[in-house]
Amino acid sequence: MEENLQIRPDAGRMQNHIEALARLTTPEHPYTRRSFTPLYRQGRELVTRWMQEAGLEVSLDQAANLVGWRAGDNPGLPAIAIGSHTDTVPEGGRFDGIIGVVAAIEIAHCLSEQSITLHHPLEVIDYLAEEPSEFGISTVGSRAMAGALSPEHLRLTDSSGRALAQGIAEMGGHPEQIEAARRQPGTLALSLELHIEQGPVLEETGLPIGIVTGLVGIHRAAIRLEGVANHAGTTPMAMRKDALAGAAEIILALERLCQTTAGQAVGTIGMIAAAPNASNIIAGQVNLVAEWRSIDPALLEHLADDVEQHIREITSRRGLRLTYSPLSDTEPVQVPEEVQTLLKHTCESLGLRTHSLPSGAGHDTNHLAALASAGMLFIPSRAGRSHCPEEWSEIEDIVQGALVLGQAILAFDRGQS
Amino acid sequence: MEENLQIRPDAGRMQNHIEALARLTTPEHPYTRRSFTPLYRQGRELVTRWMQEAGLEVSLDQAANLVGWRAGDNPGLPAIAIGSHTDTVPEGGRFDGIIGVVAAIEIAHCLSEQSITLHHPLEVIDYLAEEPSEFGISTVGSRAMAGALSPEHLRLTDSSGRALAQGIAEMGGHPEQIEAARRQPGTLALSLELHIEQGPVLEETGLPIGIVTGLVGIHRAAIRLEGVANHAGTTPMAMRKDALAGAAEIILALERLCQTTAGQAVGTIGMIAAAPNASNIIAGQVNLVAEWRSIDPALLEHLADDVEQHIREITSRRGLRLTYSPLSDTEPVQVPEEVQTLLKHTCESLGLRTHSLPSGAGHDTNHLAALASAGMLFIPSRAGRSHCPEEWSEIEDIVQGALVLGQAILAFDRGQS
Repeated sequence: MEENLQIRPDAGRMQNHIEALARLTTPEHPYTRRSFTPLYRQGRELVTRWMQEAGLEVSLDQAANLVGWRAGDNPGLPAIAIGSHTDTVPEGGRFDGIIGVVAAIEIAHCLSEQSITLHHPLEVIDYLAEEPSEFGISTVGSRAMAGALSPEHLRLTDSSGRALAQGIAEMGGHPEQIEAARRQPGTLALSLELHIEQGPVLEETGLPIGIVTGLVGIHRAAIRLEGVANHAGTTPMAMRKDALAGAAEIILALERLCQTTAGQAVGTIGMIAAAPNASNIIAGQVNLVAEWRSIDPALLEHLADDVEQHIREITSRRGLRLTYSPLSDTEPVQVPEEVQTLLKHTCESLGLRTHSLPSGAGHDTNHLAALASAGMLFIPSRAGRSHCPEEWSEIEDIVQGALVLGQAILAFDRGQS
Repeated sequence: MEENLQIRPDAGRMQNHIEALARLTTPEHPYTRRSFTPLYRQGRELVTRWMQEAGLEVSLDQAANLVGWRAGDNPGLPAIAIGSHTDTVPEGGRFDGIIGVVAAIEIAHCLSEQSITLHHPLEVIDYLAEEPSEFGISTVGSRAMAGALSPEHLRLTDSSGRALAQGIAEMGGHPEQIEAARRQPGTLALSLELHIEQGPVLEETGLPIGIVTGLVGIHRAAIRLEGVANHAGTTPMAMRKDALAGAAEIILALERLCQTTAGQAVGTIGMIAAAPNASNIIAGQVNLVAEWRSIDPALLEHLADDVEQHIREITSRRGLRLTYSPLSDTEPVQVPEEVQTLLKHTCESLGLRTHSLPSGAGHDTNHLAALASAGMLFIPSRAGRSHCPEEWSEIEDIVQGALVLGQAILAFDRGQS
């Protein structure tokens, strides 16, 4: 029986939980449940109740991470952590983060209902404020667990002048003891996060489970081009210093570099402002923000050089003045081979085909990777849409994701016992 | 003596007039003297006095064009019209339009001082409201003279709800009799306008006088591109429908088409708006306004076809939804050969080298061309700047322009006598 042990997630209960959280939204802007708001606290009250119903012992750590604890039968073993987040972006979706929390609770519920005891303790965690918050940073809770939430971060303020420290205190944390939220390496045996893909790959390939190979590093740079704002009728083509035409070349150069690189990378310019922005005046100034991402650190650096070199060539050839300002520069995170293998074998034993892919987005797992063997599972997102009300994942896929996550924990727990 | 008759423009007087008008500006936004404002009326009071000092008989027509009249000695001949405008764009310059009025007055002054009588009557005209006015249209006065100011135009309102008809009445016109401002073809023998180039060609070529070959026609189109706003990290390059990358291709295609056309054309995209315009989201929608100009009507049509075809190819290849909306479509105006020849011969007889070029901007001459043989002279603009406080032309060039204009009138008058 031990060999065939399988949890039985309850699709109806999971759907009820997802829908209950979806109802907690700013009514005129669904689906909005921003971190550090009363709506977010209301959501976490539901999560607390569900954790308790799943037999978990609930507490808040100093960083206001909401933790449901289930004892293992070997007190010497470090915990297995599963979870995600319940805050949303403005006008976001019902699934991003939420299914990871709902699935983790459901797994605990199954363990309790099916009287399965793990050797390791289990922590079901609703990490505080994963999305970019009003304080200007994201992944507040997991950052604190990794010891990466600094006093400077705690002093960041929102538009009302409230400091992040105060926001954490209002969520039930103890920012003055934030160091105590830090988990020491070795105190977590494994961290797994189930998440929607937020991209179109699984849907396009028709595969139900994505095994995340790593989380991309992101380079971002602000680009200012200064040309000469001149009359669109009286300035011959050969005498122009057209900042928008220069920007157009840069947009296409970044696209081409990321399309043709031998490795796997994406690059985007999504933000543009031209001045004076009049139909009959040649643009004198354009501001862009460019970003490129890869899980390959060498490729990321190579792209950084290539992108900057192309921009300098374009602006120099066009006589534009360039101000090139790197904005941020985060390193990629690799998911350890043994975690990917654990997830793959689990899927194989369930008869599920998988697709290995990098996560193009940042997650709490970026920080958890500093503490533990950390991995992620993706389920398909309809049309790849995310961070919008159209975000959608089928309940069958969500339940299947919970099943894989639960079976992976069981396998890990038994394998390590 | 008749053979060597030459007017002697007074540089000091011209400079004084230019500076006196420059002082009539909204103090905090030099140089701003918007049409239909008290400042504009104050400026025209100065112009009226200067016209009177130049021996002209001053009146306002029904469209509030300010006209200084000097009799010729052959009452059977139609008039020669010279002039330009004295309104400015917001934060415009001290020379655009103004030098054409000041030079025309100076010529009349010279004729009077030097006791030169023309065979033709001479009209020195300060055309009403040449720049785009708060009522949304430009060239109000010359438009009325050409019979192209419609009842619909007169009902246009500014932001305070005042109708253009009322604005014209406040300037001393009689909008209820606007039809009487219309000049019948044949009632003007010749129309000449001296203007700053507003572009860099004369300065770059080092030539002091530009002979305008024609005034460009302008095609303008609004372009809306709809792609899919998706996560910049999770959407592989091959699965994107990036509206901004499509816009970039269109910007460069228009530039390339105008650079490589066998004829003379300019094309500009100066206005762009992307949505959601966030650094980490692929642009889902971009709006552009594109325009292209040429004096060659066939080239203009050819470009229109080429531009639209390229845009359709780009958007179709990229899977973007295109909304292509032509906004305006004005036809080029040709300056008659005999007028260009008159101006060229005049410059040759004065030992001045010239450069023939189209006017890339619209002017009152666009409308005057419907009434008379109409031509224009350009003098250099420093660095091609215009419609900005940096707009600058040297007084020596302005005086030289007045001299050419005056001598051309004398030659035309004598040749026609």
